[in-house]
Amino acid sequence: MTQASQWDIGDDDHPHEECGVVGVWGSPDAAALTALGLHALQHRGQEAAGIVSLAGQGQFHAHKGRGLVGDNFSNAAVIAGLPGHAALGHNRYATTGETALRNVQPLYADFEFGGFAVAHNGNLTNAHVLKRALVRRGCLFQSTTDSEVFIHLIAISLYSTVMDRLIDALKQVQGAYSLVALHNGALLGARDPLGVRPLVLGKLPAGGFVLSSETCGLDIVGADFVRDVEPGEIVLIDDSGVRSIRPFARPSSPRFCIFEYIYFARPDSIVEGTPVYDTRKRIGAELARESGVKADVIVPVPDSGVPAAMGYAAEAGIPFELGIIRNHYVGRTFIEPTDQIRNLGVKLKHSANRSMIEGKRVVLVDDSIVRGTTSRKIVEMVRQAGATEVHMRISSPPTTHSCFYGIDTPERAKLLAANHDVAEMANIIGADSLAFISLDGLYRALGRDGRDPAAPAYCDACFTGDYAIPLLDQQDNSERPLPLLQVANR
Amino acid sequence: MTQASQWDIGDDDHPHEECGVVGVWGSPDAAALTALGLHALQHRGQEAAGIVSLAGQGQFHAHKGRGLVGDNFSNAAVIAGLPGHAALGHNRYATTGETALRNVQPLYADFEFGGFAVAHNGNLTNAHVLKRALVRRGCLFQSTTDSEVFIHLIAISLYSTVMDRLIDALKQVQGAYSLVALHNGALLGARDPLGVRPLVLGKLPAGGFVLSSETCGLDIVGADFVRDVEPGEIVLIDDSGVRSIRPFARPSSPRFCIFEYIYFARPDSIVEGTPVYDTRKRIGAELARESGVKADVIVPVPDSGVPAAMGYAAEAGIPFELGIIRNHYVGRTFIEPTDQIRNLGVKLKHSANRSMIEGKRVVLVDDSIVRGTTSRKIVEMVRQAGATEVHMRISSPPTTHSCFYGIDTPERAKLLAANHDVAEMANIIGADSLAFISLDGLYRALGRDGRDPAAPAYCDACFTGDYAIPLLDQQDNSERPLPLLQVANR
Amino acid sequence: MTQASQWDIGDDDHPHEECGVVGVWGSPDAAALTALGLHALQHRGQEAAGIVSLAGQGQFHAHKGRGLVGDNFSNAAVIAGLPGHAALGHNRYATTGETALRNVQPLYADFEFGGFAVAHNGNLTNAHVLKRALVRRGCLFQSTTDSEVFIHLIAISLYSTVMDRLIDALKQVQGAYSLVALHNGALLGARDPLGVRPLVLGKLPAGGFVLSSETCGLDIVGADFVRDVEPGEIVLIDDSGVRSIRPFARPSSPRFCIFEYIYFARPDSIVEGTPVYDTRKRIGAELARESGVKADVIVPVPDSGVPAAMGYAAEAGIPFELGIIRNHYVGRTFIEPTDQIRNLGVKLKHSANRSMIEGKRVVLVDDSIVRGTTSRKIVEMVRQAGATEVHMRISSPPTTHSCFYGIDTPERAKLLAANHDVAEMANIIGADSLAFISLDGLYRALGRDGRDPAAPAYCDACFTGDYAIPLLDQQDNSERPLPLLQVANR
Amino acid sequence: MTQASQWDIGDDDHPHEECGVVGVWGSPDAAALTALGLHALQHRGQEAAGIVSLAGQGQFHAHKGRGLVGDNFSNAAVIAGLPGHAALGHNRYATTGETALRNVQPLYADFEFGGFAVAHNGNLTNAHVLKRALVRRGCLFQSTTDSEVFIHLIAISLYSTVMDRLIDALKQVQGAYSLVALHNGALLGARDPLGVRPLVLGKLPAGGFVLSSETCGLDIVGADFVRDVEPGEIVLIDDSGVRSIRPFARPSSPRFCIFEYIYFARPDSIVEGTPVYDTRKRIGAELARESGVKADVIVPVPDSGVPAAMGYAAEAGIPFELGIIRNHYVGRTFIEPTDQIRNLGVKLKHSANRSMIEGKRVVLVDDSIVRGTTSRKIVEMVRQAGATEVHMRISSPPTTHSCFYGIDTPERAKLLAANHDVAEMANIIGADSLAFISLDGLYRALGRDGRDPAAPAYCDACFTGDYAIPLLDQQDNSERPLPLLQVANR
Repeated sequence: MTQASQWDIGDDDHPHEECGVVGVWGSPDAAALTALGLHALQHRGQEAAGIVSLAGQGQFHAHKGRGLVGDNFSNAAVIAGLPGHAALGHNRYATTGETALRNVQPLYADFEFGGFAVAHNGNLTNAHVLKRALVRRGCLFQSTTDSEVFIHLIAISLYSTVMDRLIDALKQVQGAYSLVALHNGALLGARDPLGVRPLVLGKLPAGGFVLSSETCGLDIVGADFVRDVEPGEIVLIDDSGVRSIRPFARPSSPRFCIFEYIYFARPDSIVEGTPVYDTRKRIGAELARESGVKADVIVPVPDSGVPAAMGYAAEAGIPFELGIIRNHYVGRTFIEPTDQIRNLGVKLKHSANRSMIEGKRVVLVDDSIVRGTTSRKIVEMVRQAGATEVHMRISSPPTTHSCFYGIDTPERAKLLAANHDVAEMANIIGADSLAFISLDGLYRALGRDGRDPAAPAYCDACFTGDYAIPLLDQQDNSERPLPLLQVANR
Repeated sequence: MTQASQWDIGDDDHPHEECGVVGVWGSPDAAALTALGLHALQHRGQEAAGIVSLAGQGQFHAHKGRGLVGDNFSNAAVIAGLPGHAALGHNRYATTGETALRNVQPLYADFEFGGFAVAHNGNLTNAHVLKRALVRRGCLFQSTTDSEVFIHLIAISLYSTVMDRLIDALKQVQGAYSLVALHNGALLGARDPLGVRPLVLGKLPAGGFVLSSETCGLDIVGADFVRDVEPGEIVLIDDSGVRSIRPFARPSSPRFCIFEYIYFARPDSIVEGTPVYDTRKRIGAELARESGVKADVIVPVPDSGVPAAMGYAAEAGIPFELGIIRNHYVGRTFIEPTDQIRNLGVKLKHSANRSMIEGKRVVLVDDSIVRGTTSRKIVEMVRQAGATEVHMRISSPPTTHSCFYGIDTPERAKLLAANHDVAEMANIIGADSLAFISLDGLYRALGRDGRDPAAPAYCDACFTGDYAIPLLDQQDNSERPLPLLQVANR
Repeated sequence: MTQASQWDIGDDDHPHEECGVVGVWGSPDAAALTALGLHALQHRGQEAAGIVSLAGQGQFHAHKGRGLVGDNFSNAAVIAGLPGHAALGHNRYATTGETALRNVQPLYADFEFGGFAVAHNGNLTNAHVLKRALVRRGCLFQSTTDSEVFIHLIAISLYSTVMDRLIDALKQVQGAYSLVALHNGALLGARDPLGVRPLVLGKLPAGGFVLSSETCGLDIVGADFVRDVEPGEIVLIDDSGVRSIRPFARPSSPRFCIFEYIYFARPDSIVEGTPVYDTRKRIGAELARESGVKADVIVPVPDSGVPAAMGYAAEAGIPFELGIIRNHYVGRTFIEPTDQIRNLGVKLKHSANRSMIEGKRVVLVDDSIVRGTTSRKIVEMVRQAGATEVHMRISSPPTTHSCFYGIDTPERAKLLAANHDVAEMANIIGADSLAFISLDGLYRALGRDGRDPAAPAYCDACFTGDYAIPLLDQQDNSERPLPLLQVANR
Repeated sequence: MTQASQWDIGDDDHPHEECGVVGVWGSPDAAALTALGLHALQHRGQEAAGIVSLAGQGQFHAHKGRGLVGDNFSNAAVIAGLPGHAALGHNRYATTGETALRNVQPLYADFEFGGFAVAHNGNLTNAHVLKRALVRRGCLFQSTTDSEVFIHLIAISLYSTVMDRLIDALKQVQGAYSLVALHNGALLGARDPLGVRPLVLGKLPAGGFVLSSETCGLDIVGADFVRDVEPGEIVLIDDSGVRSIRPFARPSSPRFCIFEYIYFARPDSIVEGTPVYDTRKRIGAELARESGVKADVIVPVPDSGVPAAMGYAAEAGIPFELGIIRNHYVGRTFIEPTDQIRNLGVKLKHSANRSMIEGKRVVLVDDSIVRGTTSRKIVEMVRQAGATEVHMRISSPPTTHSCFYGIDTPERAKLLAANHDVAEMANIIGADSLAFISLDGLYRALGRDGRDPAAPAYCDACFTGDYAIPLLDQQDNSERPLPLLQVANR
């Protein structure tokens, strides 16, 4: 179906996470458990979902589709078409318009040694450079995903075991990745040497293991949390249990993505040992201490701003109220309005709860400002509902840099904080005041003494420009391989 | 597509509202505004949506589809196919499995005097009796909806004007209804004599009028609230403005549905002059006063229990925390699990936020208990997450009777409160204690001095069995017309 | 899906028959047999197909769809959804662009006495007049088909038996019809008093009866031909056998449609006792005797002109060759070409078989000329392939009048023969000579002594303007009921 | 949609040709012309169709779909999505059940030197051997077609020009092929050294060139026939015209597929300089001379047997009649019947024209007998229609061997003629007599003096077992690569 031009809905001004991954080994319900895990990770990607299962001796089965996990894996017939004791799943967040089915993961290939499926969360920073070399060698790419680079590196590796070939491939790639892969002999999980993206290991009560991007993917299937897969570690899961392979030296300073705490991870997940909901409330409290303001009511921008707003309200001693209501039935597109309708400033995703706002000094709490477009509309809506003052408080530092490690932030030119100071930003979004949490405040909320510039405990490049992994593709001035084939929408 | 058997998701244990209605007169964007209004009313029905528009001299256009408003009216081509200055829309909540397109409203008929479209929220209590008489006369029913009775009564009326025929029809039906209808000369709105179901009138800034089930349907299109359509009133909207026709005597005691305050209406709507969000908080506070308990944390069952829980927490002086996280990506069905998976007690819609629950005495606040199945699962989930005590508080009185006025409650035999006292119910759902707000408490929260049994201010039949409108179909023992034609699913 | 604008393919310049009907009573495979019968009658309508079956005590089941019988009834699941010992089917040829599903027959209604389904081949000539009266009475029409008039006339009849109500309805309608209807007690077949449209009765070897538009619908299911249903007869088929009801006096002169012999009926059908293939060959021979010409080869316009061309060639002693090849993979639309492509004179449906045409004097034999557009293209194609002379011979008299009895001919203004004499027509289509069979010659080929103007043996109104059934709607100057509701394409 | 089990229709007992190919260079309507050419070649493959176009500097566009050309390329929007001056198209006949879209040609790859698309008619006889070697090297196959071998051989070739890489690939493959390929600089056509499969070159009136499997693909777009591409030749078409490259020595004896004359090619095509329709009539006449029999009527098995039956009838002086009618609305599957219906011997594709058969001695003329199942049913049907004698005459020699060069014949064990002599075959199919044309008779009809066993002028391996191209894959006993991934049907 050809899509008519779209009208952007409210809050897609958040940075977007690319993808959630799940792997199951050793359960007769492997595909069903994988689908449930993907459902719990749906917040990490809603464009498409796929599952590959492994039955018997190397018989792989696949099902992929655009849309939500529930849209694609909602009936028994689909799950019955994915038999076996092991399975691999992926939720995709597409960064470009093209969500062709060929780009939906897990990717699969028939190798000399049998079938191999891989699901990838993250982003490689030397993918273009590697791809050009592979094409020159005669490798034919079928998707436009970075992730296919893993497949070809494994295919052409001269090593004879799957594990050696995987290590051979990992040694060549740069970037952030949490990988889950499946072949006839084992389920594999791997994190990049700095551990930027999350991956956790769980154990099923009836036996068998689960790999998941977050602990909420374990909870939904009743798996017990075992531990995080460690930065630079490969875990190999087969019928004899879990083994750990460490092809990389342990990093002196891992760099877990700090934005997982601020926005991405589900509030009920435990990330790197820390509950996300708690952390967000502590960030809100820290923000209240740093940037207090006289007000009548603390209002979160739902849903992501809620815990921080609660923490802020409790610390400030000001009532917390749901002054903005979110419409959860919103899809990604809606009616392309006429100018008249557009001028109504219609809010499809948020509406003001007038009785909580009218005549009041309002503090809005949100998690971040990227382009600023949504913040401006929200502030305007709250003013129209009768607020006498509108103060915006943000539970992250200003987003001044793009992410190249798997989060879909726009280029710097479009980042409001990259081009304006806080006063200008307040003016642009129309707030009476605007404040961001400080970098040190954020680290304090995470239980540190502040940020150690020599060895920061997290990847915070989007706030600091401190890119711990080289950005080879960004420095590569040679011509990029063109996506030459335009496949009509089917 | 043949649907595989389904696995009920979490909380469909709520009573379900049937339908939201919107009508627009006097705007060049009538269909687009109607779609936006329906989007704001999406919580009142998600099975299907339809819009009929009126262009020029009696040219009607229609588009209907299963699914959400955004699924069906999300691109410019569909809206362009609905031209004209007036439109009528309907969100359907299907009470039975059959959501055949022929049942999706607005219903439309070609009368002698031209086209006529009608959208209906509510339920008739003498529909079967009337339908049998109409069929005997030679009327052919095309849908299985009660609403089609209006159409035939108007078609066979001997009066010569549309308004007289409508009044003729309304005089014959019994039940609860808010109607919006459209013909070549006018947009019509009507509420039943007791005003059980809501309907509000708004005015567009650029001229033109809007009828909507709730004020949130006015807010989204920037319309100003004018007033409620009154019980027993018909409003006629045409290019000369709004006229009021009163075919019925004013009721001494209207009976607006009290459950709109408790659960159905959107929290940001102003219903019969009262903000819903405020009311829910007051109910929560009243509940805390009536049924306080020592606890460490107040946890709402999201999303409907949130305002009541906030009111409860503030009154009780106990921290309010989001101890249960709701997954908003859930559709209505999901994987049919094997027994093993079912036994995991998997929660597709809710998950426990363990860090807020573990080791704590928890008060759960929810809006109602219907069958009790969801409550039992929620309590179990909270216990598994480590709660030391689980107390359930309900912001409505026990639901002891079925609704016949437009809300999809199960028959009495399935209502937990119709068959068990509160102690038994606490035992069944596994809570350490259980309390409901009292009837008088509920009325107090609504600003009354308590319930006046002689003239209760609201329809509260689901709590009291006090049915203000006769239930003729329930007493009718003659054979019901069979839905004889089984149309294969297309 | 919105259809892009279409490029008319080759030979849709034939008059089109509207519809084929099949009914089965007394077989456990009733729906499957009905589908097979419809498949054999596919040439009578390709737009849509529908089947209603009757199981047990009045349980009706329906399945309808746009497209061919094989597209809609090709798998066991669909047939399994149509259980029962009786079924009714219909192939639709849509005369207008709108093939909404609501217009696909069989039509079905829930009457006071139970369900009733009807399938209709033909056209009523007082449908508009009747419809206006019915709407005035309060009847609501759901389709835009003439056939729905039957349903309402039966619904409002004051008689108490189904048969009396059917007769009451038939007495009020004028026009051409072969009806098959199904209710709980019986399968009914009826032909109009002049017997314009065909309907035959067959008997299944294992018991049970079949009604079909043509004998080919009996052959495919192995049913033995019993007899034609007679003009003005109603046959009632139930478990006790076949009964004949004769509500109308026997006509002194029935008027079976002569065009069934020329074009519509399948060549292997026996129509009114006469094999169609034989008849067409005799028409060709008669044509050769009347309008011989010196030539090298006789070439049919395939497929409909083949038997007449064989008869012509044998009588003339000139070789018969397949000088034009038909592409059977053609659908109804194809690529909308650019002007350049259109100028290529591309033939999607026919191609010249150059080796049989080059350097030869060619006689083309076709069945009719309606607008003349296809004939012109065919002649041009044959000339481009190298024919030295092109003579066109037509196996019907000139089509000078529209049909109002169920065949989709254009209005007179568009009929080439209504506006031009034969010499002009030859010039327009570019043929060296053109001849039509004479009316008397046509009757001779059918075994008569020629046409008796006082009592012609057939309906030949399209050649003579002798309309035996009054054309009430054509004389009706009052405003027609408008199809007011435009339903977006679903 | 999962397809229910199928009931084989009538005459799929013919050998099936795999694929038709079209290429256009130098027309602004390249994709539209390609679609028209594919439409004319629809008889060579009906499972799927695809077109790749080339616009500007290396921008390729693709559209593919299951079903007919008209189903997939029937509107202007699709063609508009295939811009450019050059295009390549393919009709697929799938030999296995899996017609996954990834197998639909043209295949496309992004090479180091840019995009490259290829469409292939024929079959490689060393594809498995080559594929195993390529996979071992690290090549990842995306389809299960033989044709992908070409792509990888070109990708890994060490030569630097596209032409040298193509020649490098062609030197390694064995088998029968007519290839059309498209890259940024040129349109390429190639035939295997023995010229087993056809490929012709045409010239557009407005400039530009067309490659097509048969001349009917030129005729439909108004292109003039230039010449056959020669065995072992590569033609390179670019803006400077047509060049011929001859990487292979001219074969002493080409081996064009003799079955193209008997069955595959369209009757209006000129194949290797000989009109197909003429040839078939001559074969029929030769057959009459060799195997005359006293009879009353000659009846073709339509449509393929028609010209041979006409030739037979003229030579024998016995009337030719259409005693069997073919239903052209048949798809590939139909209702799965109950046993009762199956026993009726229902014929979905053919029906007897009883008036031409009853009481007569009938000679049936068909083109071939493969399994014999259809012949048996046809003979039975003709007897049931009243034939007193049924003699079967076949316009090809007995099919005793499988084809490995691109025609889908079953394995030898299933070939009736491989396991039975003619008398036994007559008995099995139930005919009073059976005769095949002799090998020498067939060659005579083709203008030769008979078959020269030392250097036969055609590939006639299916009749003789004389396989001119080695069958390496048939001798290869090593394990075949498994198609490991089962993709659920989307």
